[in-house]
Amino acid sequence: METVILTDPPRASRETVEALASIGVATIHEAMGRTGHISALRPIQQGVRVAGTAVTVLSWPGDNLMIHAAIEQCRPGDILVVTTREPSSHGMFGELFATGLAHRGAVGAVIDAGIRDTQELRDMGFPAWARHINVMGTVKSTPGSVNVPIVVGGQVIDAGDIVVADDDGLVVVPRAQADDALVASRARLAKEEATRAAFEGGELGLDRYGMRPVLADLGVAYRRHPEAP
Amino acid sequence: METVILTDPPRASRETVEALASIGVATIHEAMGRTGHISALRPIQQGVRVAGTAVTVLSWPGDNLMIHAAIEQCRPGDILVVTTREPSSHGMFGELFATGLAHRGAVGAVIDAGIRDTQELRDMGFPAWARHINVMGTVKSTPGSVNVPIVVGGQVIDAGDIVVADDDGLVVVPRAQADDALVASRARLAKEEATRAAFEGGELGLDRYGMRPVLADLGVAYRRHPEAP
Amino acid sequence: METVILTDPPRASRETVEALASIGVATIHEAMGRTGHISALRPIQQGVRVAGTAVTVLSWPGDNLMIHAAIEQCRPGDILVVTTREPSSHGMFGELFATGLAHRGAVGAVIDAGIRDTQELRDMGFPAWARHINVMGTVKSTPGSVNVPIVVGGQVIDAGDIVVADDDGLVVVPRAQADDALVASRARLAKEEATRAAFEGGELGLDRYGMRPVLADLGVAYRRHPEAP
Amino acid sequence: METVILTDPPRASRETVEALASIGVATIHEAMGRTGHISALRPIQQGVRVAGTAVTVLSWPGDNLMIHAAIEQCRPGDILVVTTREPSSHGMFGELFATGLAHRGAVGAVIDAGIRDTQELRDMGFPAWARHINVMGTVKSTPGSVNVPIVVGGQVIDAGDIVVADDDGLVVVPRAQADDALVASRARLAKEEATRAAFEGGELGLDRYGMRPVLADLGVAYRRHPEAP
Amino acid sequence: METVILTDPPRASRETVEALASIGVATIHEAMGRTGHISALRPIQQGVRVAGTAVTVLSWPGDNLMIHAAIEQCRPGDILVVTTREPSSHGMFGELFATGLAHRGAVGAVIDAGIRDTQELRDMGFPAWARHINVMGTVKSTPGSVNVPIVVGGQVIDAGDIVVADDDGLVVVPRAQADDALVASRARLAKEEATRAAFEGGELGLDRYGMRPVLADLGVAYRRHPEAP
Amino acid sequence: METVILTDPPRASRETVEALASIGVATIHEAMGRTGHISALRPIQQGVRVAGTAVTVLSWPGDNLMIHAAIEQCRPGDILVVTTREPSSHGMFGELFATGLAHRGAVGAVIDAGIRDTQELRDMGFPAWARHINVMGTVKSTPGSVNVPIVVGGQVIDAGDIVVADDDGLVVVPRAQADDALVASRARLAKEEATRAAFEGGELGLDRYGMRPVLADLGVAYRRHPEAP
Repeated sequence: METVILTDPPRASRETVEALASIGVATIHEAMGRTGHISALRPIQQGVRVAGTAVTVLSWPGDNLMIHAAIEQCRPGDILVVTTREPSSHGMFGELFATGLAHRGAVGAVIDAGIRDTQELRDMGFPAWARHINVMGTVKSTPGSVNVPIVVGGQVIDAGDIVVADDDGLVVVPRAQADDALVASRARLAKEEATRAAFEGGELGLDRYGMRPVLADLGVAYRRHPEAP
Repeated sequence: METVILTDPPRASRETVEALASIGVATIHEAMGRTGHISALRPIQQGVRVAGTAVTVLSWPGDNLMIHAAIEQCRPGDILVVTTREPSSHGMFGELFATGLAHRGAVGAVIDAGIRDTQELRDMGFPAWARHINVMGTVKSTPGSVNVPIVVGGQVIDAGDIVVADDDGLVVVPRAQADDALVASRARLAKEEATRAAFEGGELGLDRYGMRPVLADLGVAYRRHPEAP
Repeated sequence: METVILTDPPRASRETVEALASIGVATIHEAMGRTGHISALRPIQQGVRVAGTAVTVLSWPGDNLMIHAAIEQCRPGDILVVTTREPSSHGMFGELFATGLAHRGAVGAVIDAGIRDTQELRDMGFPAWARHINVMGTVKSTPGSVNVPIVVGGQVIDAGDIVVADDDGLVVVPRAQADDALVASRARLAKEEATRAAFEGGELGLDRYGMRPVLADLGVAYRRHPEAP
Repeated sequence: METVILTDPPRASRETVEALASIGVATIHEAMGRTGHISALRPIQQGVRVAGTAVTVLSWPGDNLMIHAAIEQCRPGDILVVTTREPSSHGMFGELFATGLAHRGAVGAVIDAGIRDTQELRDMGFPAWARHINVMGTVKSTPGSVNVPIVVGGQVIDAGDIVVADDDGLVVVPRAQADDALVASRARLAKEEATRAAFEGGELGLDRYGMRPVLADLGVAYRRHPEAP
Repeated sequence: METVILTDPPRASRETVEALASIGVATIHEAMGRTGHISALRPIQQGVRVAGTAVTVLSWPGDNLMIHAAIEQCRPGDILVVTTREPSSHGMFGELFATGLAHRGAVGAVIDAGIRDTQELRDMGFPAWARHINVMGTVKSTPGSVNVPIVVGGQVIDAGDIVVADDDGLVVVPRAQADDALVASRARLAKEEATRAAFEGGELGLDRYGMRPVLADLGVAYRRHPEAP
Repeated sequence: METVILTDPPRASRETVEALASIGVATIHEAMGRTGHISALRPIQQGVRVAGTAVTVLSWPGDNLMIHAAIEQCRPGDILVVTTREPSSHGMFGELFATGLAHRGAVGAVIDAGIRDTQELRDMGFPAWARHINVMGTVKSTPGSVNVPIVVGGQVIDAGDIVVADDDGLVVVPRAQADDALVASRARLAKEEATRAAFEGGELGLDRYGMRPVLADLGVAYRRHPEAP
């Protein structure tokens, strides 16, 4: 397999990315027709939401050579997304990489492998999502690629795609769909807000979504519990 | 399989439920002869303990139709308990459902599937326990049942049973055993308090529980470490 | 298998232990040539780092008899390390054991099984690492050993070895290597600090570690992204 | 929790059990409305199907005392079903137990724990299903119960219920539903046979089940592949 | 998300597919630069190797509607590849589907979910690979797509791509790379044959691959074992 | 960490190894006081039992350099035992390595990582046990060690120790304990044979092991089932 570092990938617009950063992963995922979500990676902090344009890394397990190469490709607003060619629990990312990324204006890191220095990362306010927490170190021996399409948690991520991440997990917004996704997400937000207000007022989903006849059609019977008081 | 919504199930008494809410899951579990505990579901918050009477939901994986039906059956002091007919990681519960439950006075949710909007749930103070965190949405196509007995984490839960939940997990107290469980739990609490005081004073479990002769009978030898200083 | 309680094991020096307690698990692990790390057990609290000399326990699954025997063997500065002869999720450690350990000056507990009373342990400030959280109780029927070598998470731990634990996991420092490990860890800390300063100033790992020729030798090509703007 | 050995449980009729033994687990499961299936335990042999009346065992993890007690309760046509009060991988069943069971006419064993002597069991033709394969032995120290209701793989099994097991897994037929389950299973078998014949003749499920309008109603579009030849 | 059935996808040539069917998954995977392999799905039979052109299915978990639609799209030499929009253990494929596929000349099935009727499938000689074995049935309620790109076990599979499957797992050969992959696989086969002959004759990999200086350069020392006889 | 290849390790005697090869893993494990068993690795074949003296390999994940070095160290009667410094699913062993080992008289391979060419290995009659089946290939870049002590599945294995493997898993017999283990295993075999004969004749374990008073002492009650016929 050819190994290559692609420079200057196209990126989704900063405005769109920042607008998506204010909307939750669940809402964007729904607005995009329930596509793009990644649940296998978990945040190392709580209560943080970020969005960035992906710089992708395909590494050999336990080898961080290509992450070093990828740092140089990061621009303000990017998010580093690392996977390995076979599942790995090595601690492939930590405080020193985060220091380099922070200097370049990257907004976070998504590591489909292990991560370490978790307390230090929280202390410096650098958000990260990972599959494992593990201190085991790495070597720098085997080539890989930067900014090629990768698969993370069942989703394809290409350089320049938008990754939104919060406590619920991550969602990938393909660059070409970013504007549509933003419009749809805002529409869904409005709808959710209306539903929330209705539910706060006591309306039931059964009525709001017209599900009573659906239950009847499906043959779901209502019966008083045999031991009802 | 017949699908049915049982209304007005019998419920354990509010007084008993509230009394159990002040006792930890571990203590109640011990007091009931080590029965009823569920460890496979984890809290999405820290430091919260609740107890409620179960409204049970048996759903098709990835289908939230019956949760909508169950909301209507909830009364103040209830706790919603959802399982699926086959393991599912779908985000079957989130902020909107919690809004509806909070309006009806439910005290929490136990989801043997995925949950989403975890930060929003923490922000609104609605406690929840779940097997997965996942934004993936649901459909409303397949019938199921409400308030029938279900199995969650190896335990049978029936409508009206008491579910106590805290950072350690959950324990199910069958409605018919609730008063006995409360008496036994209080007795155990007192015993634990006495033991704690003894241990704080330096007494050893070996002596308090009379285990030195047990060790001897079992042939456990004491020997000075060969490299003892 | 003989069952034995070894008393008065040799212990690493307090000064070395305390010095290591101020250095992170990741750094010590690296300084020791990437040996000794345990990632399968997770902390029940956040932001705490401790180091102690191990008192080891080999128990039958679901049986806490030998933990009682081990408490008596603990001295100020020790850390209790428990494993079972076959994987177990039982809640083998909780608040009462912690009370006894705290009285004797132990600094924490490492449980390769389940743990319970997690909130109470956090409230009393007793740090712990475990494989499972589970309230399920134990019996006191089957013999085991104290202060014999055990294997936890793939690492051999002997009585008197140093265990350092933080949010990243654990590292075992064999007693005989403790002084060397401390020297090497301090050297590595200094090196990491220099690297951090360099990265904060914008230097790249590619340059600092001389990896550009490595990439070239490995045939990694730089190419402008076909869709570069 | 009270520990008890219940003798002479009621049993489903031999004729019904034997009739179910000739029908596959998948078919019976479907005929019962998709209830009762267990997929977490796997057979140690291939191509064997058995059905028996359950003798249930609730053991302490790693303790085979109650299995010994249960052997005496087995009658010809029974199947031994063992679970533990907390997940266990111990090899709780092997050739010697199978020898005792075979002498008493039991038809197989279902072990929700570990099993050993797998080759010997195959050689003697004693079928078994288990969660783990593991030689680790057991003690005989802690009480448990025989012929009380237990939960295995999410299903409640009571003494005298029918357990059918084959390469696909297991299905539990509650004793009271056995005759109905047999009638429904035979009806389903006939229906499956007709469907098989239709499919062998080239009929499509789309047509046989009338799903073309369903697809249309759901908005599923047919489109020629953009790269169609 | 749009749901669509794409008809008449382009297919890799029969000659290439059949040629690849005679080469093992491991060899093809190596020949393609170590891409395309899937290890998470396991065969239900032993000693069978097939290759086919993929007809892809994206289903809702526990819903087999789209598999019915996909059967009609299968042609001789195809292999059915099914995934679900969220992980599912439902038994989504069995004997009846296999009967329909066999009638149409399909060579096998790859199910990223559960499978059932495993003994019947072996008896009829229809090879299959799956993630789970489980009898749990399905509904036919929710739309999905056929012949769109899907992700299975971390690999993207598009309609018409070649899937080769044997006891080692699966490898996906993108249609556009099929001829190159065949050439490279044959070259690698020849090389492996030469290596096998050399190794049978006693040559060591250390010598054949020139690794002795590599070991020396890496600082790997040879030392006589301290307890050497 | 120093990387080294230790040559000419001491080996357990061939007679002892061959004698142990005729005794099952479960029996030896019991005879050694229930120590040394490994259950996490599974055989790729059925019905085969081997015993050999261990040549141990500590590799970097996904790197087979040290396996090449280890082949040269193998002698007739050896068994190759490979682990990695962090969990790895790479296919680190296959037909070509087996060819080299077979030439040198090694009796099998134990791979705590992935294995490939499983059908070819069965065809050539080379037995193997592994944690994963996976074709993903390896590099030859990172140093490791041969014939140093390693930990596999929680057990320490040193060069020259005896590894016995069959369908139940593996057991490690430390070289220094080999003769004692053989004597104890033969004694246990004889005892098992007597028990088997007794059980075939209808004796119950309850009587043979004198467990009836134990049950009574533990408070286990016998009661007629409330629904007894």
